[in-house]
Amino acid sequence: MNQEIIRIGHGSGGRLSRELIHQVFLKHFSNPVLNQLGDAAWLDPQNLPLAFTTDSYVIDPVFFPGGDIGQLAVSGTVNDLCVAGAQPVWMSAGFIIEEGFLISDLEEIAISMARESVRAGISIVAGDTKVVKRGQCDKIFINTSGIGILPKSRLHLKEGGDVHPGDKIIVTGTLGNHSIAVLSAREGLHLEENITSDAMPLNSLTEKILEIPDEIRFMRDITRGGLATILVETCENKSFGIQIHENKIPVNRSVRSVCELYGFDPVYLANEGKIMLVVRQGSEEQVLSRIKTHEYGKDAAIIGEITDTNPGKAVIISSIGGRRMIDMLSGEMLPRIC
Amino acid sequence: MNQEIIRIGHGSGGRLSRELIHQVFLKHFSNPVLNQLGDAAWLDPQNLPLAFTTDSYVIDPVFFPGGDIGQLAVSGTVNDLCVAGAQPVWMSAGFIIEEGFLISDLEEIAISMARESVRAGISIVAGDTKVVKRGQCDKIFINTSGIGILPKSRLHLKEGGDVHPGDKIIVTGTLGNHSIAVLSAREGLHLEENITSDAMPLNSLTEKILEIPDEIRFMRDITRGGLATILVETCENKSFGIQIHENKIPVNRSVRSVCELYGFDPVYLANEGKIMLVVRQGSEEQVLSRIKTHEYGKDAAIIGEITDTNPGKAVIISSIGGRRMIDMLSGEMLPRIC
Repeated sequence: MNQEIIRIGHGSGGRLSRELIHQVFLKHFSNPVLNQLGDAAWLDPQNLPLAFTTDSYVIDPVFFPGGDIGQLAVSGTVNDLCVAGAQPVWMSAGFIIEEGFLISDLEEIAISMARESVRAGISIVAGDTKVVKRGQCDKIFINTSGIGILPKSRLHLKEGGDVHPGDKIIVTGTLGNHSIAVLSAREGLHLEENITSDAMPLNSLTEKILEIPDEIRFMRDITRGGLATILVETCENKSFGIQIHENKIPVNRSVRSVCELYGFDPVYLANEGKIMLVVRQGSEEQVLSRIKTHEYGKDAAIIGEITDTNPGKAVIISSIGGRRMIDMLSGEMLPRIC
Repeated sequence: MNQEIIRIGHGSGGRLSRELIHQVFLKHFSNPVLNQLGDAAWLDPQNLPLAFTTDSYVIDPVFFPGGDIGQLAVSGTVNDLCVAGAQPVWMSAGFIIEEGFLISDLEEIAISMARESVRAGISIVAGDTKVVKRGQCDKIFINTSGIGILPKSRLHLKEGGDVHPGDKIIVTGTLGNHSIAVLSAREGLHLEENITSDAMPLNSLTEKILEIPDEIRFMRDITRGGLATILVETCENKSFGIQIHENKIPVNRSVRSVCELYGFDPVYLANEGKIMLVVRQGSEEQVLSRIKTHEYGKDAAIIGEITDTNPGKAVIISSIGGRRMIDMLSGEMLPRIC
């Protein structure tokens, strides 16, 4: 279907819609639940608690170093489920496409989604396609909603984090790679070190971590708003504080250079394949070495701890000992990063 | 928040995002599951089979006679679940908003969603907001995904329709009202009879119908592609055919006039509050009178039947006895109708 383009009729619900569904989506996403093509898909949760999440993806450009909007959409949804402790099982995919978009590009995106969903063990079981006229959206937007099931051994994760002073804070890898990869593609930057997006389904990593579930207070994926936003949300209005050691935060050299050039702080950059964990004091080395054996966790580091001082505040300690309070991102540094 | 507008920072994941979530979405959607604001929402399906569906809404204009995009999004998702026989329980809402959109308009949309979700008994438990620059989307797009549970008495509906020649075809009301209401708003038409959208959650109607579940072969909501598309899908590659009596199809006079003016056929028009049912032969009058007692079913009619002639084909018989085959919509008559 090279050079064939999306036409308004592909969103009509009629003949062209059906052709597109068969020629692109069913071709790559085929599974028994989806293939029924009913108004709704049927699932069997086997009496386990479910996790449910949704995200829309509006990233620009659609194809970027290390991934594309399809890979990102599957990863993002899988990661929202697995950091909650759930095993991702089913997902939906809703496409809003600009008239004139290349069907070959759509198929490349569908192939990425199929590959990542197989990698993560999640089935795409429901979908929708809308087409709008040229200029009414920018190329393609994708919404994915996901459902995961929570194994009985992890029921305590459902209650949220029971955090104590002394607990340690771990990040599973370098911060900012996704944001800087997208920025470099958008702005045509030439970096000395090749930076690619970290967009990746992380459920194999969280499964490894959750083999010792009782050591884990909670996990969050570090997306829009960056590490800073999660740190603020973790301690805001709580009886404990957080301190982070700036020189322990893993950041690639190229990412750091671009941050200096643009005035970005890596703690505010969005990631699509990085997790922040709070772990029980004393178990941090055990959890860290577990994470480091996984290919997506080799740059993991213990970066700070929960404190009984500065309740409600997250503080960052610089390499020369300066202390500054971390606030949430106000405004937006990089629109359409996911 | 009158005249406040959406800014790029409202999609940042940081401070402004959080303010928007609290000031608009939590204010109107508040429920114990959503209020946790985790990466994923926790659900308890109580060991019942689940139905799962997704749809994106790109309707233009956002506010139209009889509804708005928010009412439409909740109705559409509820209806996809309830025609499958499921009771809608949980849904997500993903917003893609153009920079500069009025926050007062967003709030009006949120209020509609809250009202319709209460009416339908479904909780909005997960959400996402993205903001794109001016010109990168047209005002606002909403994706909703929904989850429903299937009561044990209706397990046979999960298998799809076991249809037999002689079974009757019912529609629950007049066709085309939604499409013509949106068209009239878009084009500034002045109609002799005021036509409003039929967008409405129909689960109270399907619950009434499903009090006698064994009489119902299956149900479909008549959305994009219209009645024609559903009829074709019902009999395509099957050993039975369908015949429909044109003069029995309920259509408002104004809708009919606009159709004549624009060259539309009402069987291709999208509806957002109408269902097609196939019912067991002999039970059609009982089902029809049940539907007619409901406020959303007062114009219901038996419009045709399953035949053992013309296998695989849907045929429409005109008021003067002419027969023509129904095909799916090819191309698109009315873009952005939902």
